[in-house]
Formats: sequence, C-alpha cells, structure tokens
Amino acid sequence: MLPFVNLLIINRKSAVPVYLQIANQLTALIRRGVLKSKQKLPSSRELADLLQVHRKTIVAAYSEIQMQGWTTTSPKRGVFVSSALPELTPVKWEKDGPYERLSVPLPFYRVNTHYIAEPTVESSKYDWVIDDGLPDARIAPLEALIREYKIRIQKNFLFKNNAGTLSPGSLSLRETLLSYLAETRGIQAITPNILITQGAQMGIFMSAQLLLRPGDYVVVGEPGYFMANSVFESLEANILRALVDKDGIDVDQVEEFCLKYNVKMLYIIPHHHHPTTVTLSPQRRMQLIALAEKFNFVIVEDDYDYDFHYHSAPYLPLVSYNSNRIIYIGSLTKCLAPSIRIGFMVAPVELIDEAIKIRRSISLRGDFIMEEALSVLIASGDINRHIKKSNKIYMHRRDLLCELMRQHLQDFVTFDIPTGGMAVWIKFGKGYPLKKIASNAAKHRLLMSDGTKYNTHNEDYNAIRFGFASLTDIELTEVIQLLKASLQKA
Amino acid sequence: MLPFVNLLIINRKSAVPVYLQIANQLTALIRRGVLKSKQKLPSSRELADLLQVHRKTIVAAYSEIQMQGWTTTSPKRGVFVSSALPELTPVKWEKDGPYERLSVPLPFYRVNTHYIAEPTVESSKYDWVIDDGLPDARIAPLEALIREYKIRIQKNFLFKNNAGTLSPGSLSLRETLLSYLAETRGIQAITPNILITQGAQMGIFMSAQLLLRPGDYVVVGEPGYFMANSVFESLEANILRALVDKDGIDVDQVEEFCLKYNVKMLYIIPHHHHPTTVTLSPQRRMQLIALAEKFNFVIVEDDYDYDFHYHSAPYLPLVSYNSNRIIYIGSLTKCLAPSIRIGFMVAPVELIDEAIKIRRSISLRGDFIMEEALSVLIASGDINRHIKKSNKIYMHRRDLLCELMRQHLQDFVTFDIPTGGMAVWIKFGKGYPLKKIASNAAKHRLLMSDGTKYNTHNEDYNAIRFGFASLTDIELTEVIQLLKASLQKA
Repeated sequence: MLPFVNLLIINRKSAVPVYLQIANQLTALIRRGVLKSKQKLPSSRELADLLQVHRKTIVAAYSEIQMQGWTTTSPKRGVFVSSALPELTPVKWEKDGPYERLSVPLPFYRVNTHYIAEPTVESSKYDWVIDDGLPDARIAPLEALIREYKIRIQKNFLFKNNAGTLSPGSLSLRETLLSYLAETRGIQAITPNILITQGAQMGIFMSAQLLLRPGDYVVVGEPGYFMANSVFESLEANILRALVDKDGIDVDQVEEFCLKYNVKMLYIIPHHHHPTTVTLSPQRRMQLIALAEKFNFVIVEDDYDYDFHYHSAPYLPLVSYNSNRIIYIGSLTKCLAPSIRIGFMVAPVELIDEAIKIRRSISLRGDFIMEEALSVLIASGDINRHIKKSNKIYMHRRDLLCELMRQHLQDFVTFDIPTGGMAVWIKFGKGYPLKKIASNAAKHRLLMSDGTKYNTHNEDYNAIRFGFASLTDIELTEVIQLLKASLQKA
Repeated sequence: MLPFVNLLIINRKSAVPVYLQIANQLTALIRRGVLKSKQKLPSSRELADLLQVHRKTIVAAYSEIQMQGWTTTSPKRGVFVSSALPELTPVKWEKDGPYERLSVPLPFYRVNTHYIAEPTVESSKYDWVIDDGLPDARIAPLEALIREYKIRIQKNFLFKNNAGTLSPGSLSLRETLLSYLAETRGIQAITPNILITQGAQMGIFMSAQLLLRPGDYVVVGEPGYFMANSVFESLEANILRALVDKDGIDVDQVEEFCLKYNVKMLYIIPHHHHPTTVTLSPQRRMQLIALAEKFNFVIVEDDYDYDFHYHSAPYLPLVSYNSNRIIYIGSLTKCLAPSIRIGFMVAPVELIDEAIKIRRSISLRGDFIMEEALSVLIASGDINRHIKKSNKIYMHRRDLLCELMRQHLQDFVTFDIPTGGMAVWIKFGKGYPLKKIASNAAKHRLLMSDGTKYNTHNEDYNAIRFGFASLTDIELTEVIQLLKASLQKA
C-alpha cells in the first residue's frame, strides 16, 4: 500500500472540511499518476485508522470523489480508481517547484512596445512619492460619492437594472455628462455619441483599435505621452513624430507627413500636452482641423485634465469646433482620485457603435453603481464646486513648487511654469543623470521616476513630470529638500 | 455690424459666468468663420448696450479671448480678430444638425464579430428580467464592502499608495486571493503569477491578445460562450468548434483538430459550461491536459462561477492538475454583484508579465480602493460565509424553477437540471420561436433574450439561459407565469 500517511496531509485549522481535504488530495494523486487507473484504494476503515480520523470522514471523502467520477465502487470488492481515466506519466512536481517559471516554451506573442513600465515597488519602502500629475484625493468629495453609492445598494437598484445592457455605461451618467460637457465645454452631442470608459486610457486603447491596423500611420507629438505611444506600438502601427514646441505640435510637420504617408489618425492633447504641459495655440487648432478635413484622418483629442487651467478659462476643446472627425476622450479621475476609473469618449455615432462592441469584449461593463453615484454628484454641482475649489489649491501649489525650485534647485533644473494641469515638466542638467538621482532619492525614502518612460523615442530628455497637485505645502517643501539632497550626491 | 444680439445668447441660469458665455460664443463665431480674421469687434460699450450687460462683463470677455490668443488689441483702434488665424470656409452648422451622423465617411475599421449585442433597453419599460445567470446582489455583503471602502478613503491610504505601479492590481488582494485559491481550489501559485482584471471577460480578452493573431487556430465548445467567441472573431482567428455533450467538450474532436491544424489555444469552461451548464468529466480533463502537452497549445480555463455547485463539492480546476500551460480566469462578480467588476488571471510568470503590459494599455489600473476593500472581506471569511449561504439559497431557487417549469411549461420546453451555476439551459419547442416569445414577454413587461446571442454558429438552438439565482421564490413564480402567458400567444 502507498504511504498514505505521508501523502494525505490534514490541516485541522483550514476552512476546508477534512473530508474535502482528503478527497482533493486523493484526486490530486490520481491526476499525478501516483494512484493509477484500476488501482484499489484502502478500505474506509483502514484509511481512517491510518489518518486517525472518523470512518465517516473517509466515507464522505470517497463519496465525493465517486460523485465527481474519479472512482468506481464494486459492492463487495471495494473502491477502485476509474478504469476510464487515461494513464499519465507521473509529473515530477518536486522539481517543477511552485508554479513559477515555464519548464517548456509556450506559443505566445510578446507585446511589442518600447515603453518600459516602472517596476512595481513596495510602498512600505517609501514615505514620499513624486507622481506624474495626480489629483489630491484627500480633498475630493469621496464621502459624498460613497454615500450615493450606498443608497443605490439599498434601493434595490440592482434588481431593476439590467446589467446585460450596460456596456455603454449607465444611462444617467451619460446624460448628465452630456449636459455638463455642453455647458462647460461647448460640446453638442446626444446620448448615442457618448460611451463610458474605464479612465481616459481605455478611450485611447479603443480609438487605436478602431483606427489602426499593422502598418497604418499615426501622428503623435514628440515628446509625447508614453502610454498612448505604447498602445500604437503594440498594434504595430507606424508612429510619425511631429515636434512639440511652446505652441504645441508643429502643424507644418504634420502636413508634411500627410503629403508623404496615408495618415489614419492624429493623437493629440491640445490643452496641457503630456509631458511638456504646453497648450496648442488657436491658430494651430484651426490648421489641424483643416488638415484633418483635407487629408481625411481622424483626430483623437485626449483632454484628460481639461478643468485645471490657471491663467484664463480653459480653452474649448477641438471637438467643439467640428465634431465630425474627432474622437474626444476625457476622464473624471483627475477631478476625484486615481482610484476612480471612470472616463468617457464622445464621437460620431458610427464610431461609438463600434467602440461599444470593443468595450463589451474588453470587460462587459463598468461598475455602474459607481457611475450612477458619480452622476448624482455631477448633477448636484458637487463636482463643479470641487473643481473650482481645487483649481485654487492647485494653482497655489504650482506657484509654491516653482518658487521652491527657484530657491533650491536653480543650479540643477530648468522648467517653464505651466498654465494648467497638475505637473511641471522639469529638465535636469547634464551632470545630473536621473537614474542616479532616482536611486539616491530612494535612499531618502522618496520614490520618483528615473525619466526612462518619458524617452519615447531616441532622445534622452533627462526630465520628469513633477506632480504638484497631490502634495500639500509642507509635503512639497519636504520633497524638494529630499530631491535637493539626492542631487547633491549625484 | 453683425447681429450680435441674435448671435450671442446669454443664459442667466447657467453655472457658466456670463462673461465666459460671451467669450466662448465669440470664439465659436471666429472658428465658424462668421467673424473673420482681422475683423474689428464692437467696442465694449457698444456690445454692453446691445446685450444689456455691464460693460465690465464685456471687458472680462474680451480679456479672456485675448489671453487665449483669438484677438489682438490695438490701443486706440480697438479689438480685432487675430490676423494669425487661417481663413476657414464657414461650416453649415444648421444643416449638419446635432452631431449625430457622419457627413463624410471616416477611415475606421469595423469590429469583425458575428455576435449581435442585445440592444440597450429602457429599464422603465420592464418590471421583470430573465438574466443570463447573475447573482442576487440583494443578499451580498455589499454594505460590509462599502464600509471597508470608506475606511480606506479616510485612512490617507491614497496618499501612501503609488497609483502608477498598480496595474497588476492591489498587492493585498493578489496575496489574499492566492491563499484563498490555494485553500479552496488547490492552486499553487505565487504573487507574480496573479493579475487582477476587470471581470473574467478582461481575462478572456487579454488571453486572446497573448495567444492569437489573424489566422491562428483556437478551439472552443459548440454551443459556446458568445462573448469569448466574439473576442476571437474580432482578432480574426480561425475558430474550430468541438461539440459539447453531457460530459463536456468532445476530446476526440479536439484531437482531430490538433492533427489537422496548428492549434494555439483552447478556450474552455470545464465547470459549468456556458451556455449548457455541463461539467467536464475527469477522464476528459486528463485527456485535455495530455493533448495540450502533446500539441503544445495553451488552455484558457474560464472558471467564472466555480463556487456554485450543488451536488458535490466543486471539481478542482484544471490548473490544479498542471499549471504550466494553463491560463486560469476567475471572477468575484458572481459572489457579489454584477456591478463589482473584479476578476483575476493566474498563469505562468512569463504570460502574466506580458498581460500586465496589456492591462496597462487598456486602462492603467482598476479601482484599487475597491480591490483593497474586497481583500479584507476575503481574508475575514465574509466572502466564504456568503458563498455558503448563497449556495443553499441558489440550490433552492434552482429546484423551484425546475419544479415550476415541470408544472407549467412542460409542453413548451426541455431542460436538464444543472449540477451547479446560476442558470438553466432551456430549449423551446419548434412551434415556439424565441423572437416571438420575447416580443410577447415585453408586452408583459418581462425582459428576456430572444436567443439570438446563443446562436454562435449556424445552428438555431431556440434556447436561452434562465438565470434563477437573482430571483426570489415569489419573483420566480411570477416570471414563470408571465413566460407561460407569453408562450400561449406565440
């Protein structure tokens, strides 16, 4: 007989009943070829004695594996491993170890992207983070949001709503957003023009799926948004990079590309370009629209932080000029918190109809209770009041950051004061390579980018975005001191 | 002078300040070519008189558009539309109407899918819904979940966590899930093997992205899960359909396919196959694993409702047999509510590393506060207790539904009692076409599928999944009466 005492390990502290532990381990032995087809199992009395459990426990375990079809019982002869199971060569489990590395190469495709993700870090190793331009969730009306969420759970809401039809997002959020976008951004659209997404990134992903196939041409700004470029690369599109100066993307260069290549799509962040934060000038806006008409391409307008602009009112988006060939992407993440993954896409109906199919393929639907709760906060004006309040706070933080850098870092960095958004684009001097600085900073328990992700092309910018919105005055002061200390060792 | 009184409409009830309304409308007139480059604007005094607003309001509006770069001011001569703007032909906005249909064809790709989505419906038109197999959110511990969510907002949690590194999901949820999966499903894996997804669907989507390119071969069951097939179709893979009988997928047919084609991937729901709810027999499980080894393909094991099994303990998943060539997909949606869009994917590290890149491209990260809250509920045993409780309730509802159908619908339908899951696969007789029945049902304010989505291939099954888990005894009784009434008119 096999050494069942060693093979079947019972853990009495487990939430799994003992009979089931035994049953699962028996089926595992069969699968591994330790117990072979037609082999006889010990009687329930024998096994109960061996394992020091009640006989009823073994009977229950045997019933379980029999019901699952692993064994057959012959009334007088006992329990046997089913003869219908194929014989397997025992797998050497000890050697393979804990499911970590592949023992054989598998036929899968690697994702074609130049973008190197920042590694996952243990947050316990850091006290401070310089982010890329995230909002301060501590001042956001999250409690109000959760209150509305809770009401919708209690209201039997889930029963009445048909989850199967919610791929485009909650109807009430779509309609509330349309009024909001019409009022604040001059966007004239109707319900079939809007789709709720999981953040602005999903809008970029779906637009690319709609517009690009391997070999197609897409125009982006350089420097540009690494996560957008990464999507285009993974689709094996050809990326054409037009330089971005203080007025935004170089429109003449875009035109040259159009004359040379069959451009399908232009991806642009006209309001606060990522990473440099510049705003596209009115003149270039109108030129771009004219080029799109002339060369028949689609503009994907990413307007992820529209609401945050400090010198004048925000510029109305391109889509308010001419809506016929623009996919407009926005997000509510920046108004609330990095964890609120709700964004939207506004586009001609034909495109939205296709995008809904993609949305459904990706994940069926979003958290529609959260969508409904958010809809209430937009309709009540809570979100708008929060935007006004946080605009003042963020402008102050921007000014403080720039002042602190002038005082403490002027020998090391150069930057322009951004007119909006949540980050400053900071270039470090040649003697201060960011890999070294970031590694020094880690020793001070400060997590910051080493700049690699911003090098979307061949150029090494040696620059990062410094997100000021998420840090209070005291925190900004502290972080600048730590950054300075990290620079002095560089 | 232009008829500014008619062109500039002021809405005093709007949340947008009057000066900004005027500014936005002026820039719109410039963009549309109504106000042309170099044209002079009326003086602030003139315009204030015309619009009956204070002169300061016009001054503020003019400052705004000047700051945005639309106009230039000549000290003594007045305000002029900038000469730097290109001249545009005025767009006929009246004719184009409200942003609905494209006036010109755009160069986009349609999604290649045979699956026809059920149309979005107005939920106010229905009192009752027969869903596809959704849980009853009314009995789920959502209040406890929200309590944990709220704690994490207050705890300054957001500040300390670095959102930029959360694409694989919250670390605490990943680790809690691993213990849970090891204990309940015999899955041996470590942290780099698991990725949090937005529902099981995202796991299917990402697996297909990893394994399939146009022309590649994928094996599925027939009948099969329409949303999986839809993903494979949209990637232009070749779908090979092996028949599903009472023991699951026909393994001999799978082998024949492998001999004939270079199969890259097999998609399977071994536990409760969708739509027919059958469970794959142990014999076939072992044969499938052997085939995967022999022909070097990857098995994508979709185990979306593992926890709900009524006759015996759930079968351990395939991945617990041999983890080297299986992508294991699961979801917490079925344990909680359709709105909780959190799932997971367990696979060899090499595959997870690539999948994280795709996850990031799709939507950066999930709602990590919700992930953390859920992690607490799993660790505390709340989820497990809820599963046990709801298993009893759902088994009772299954039995009631089958009994009601025997009593009231036996002349119209045939079905097998499912051993687990949340739905019964019901075939309607030939004289009862589902399109007609569903249309009758709508008149009774009952929303049900017309069966089209289950016809994944050429076969018209004239069948639907009847989700029993989400309906109480009274509701089930009522829905069966309405269904009967809809049949009598068919």
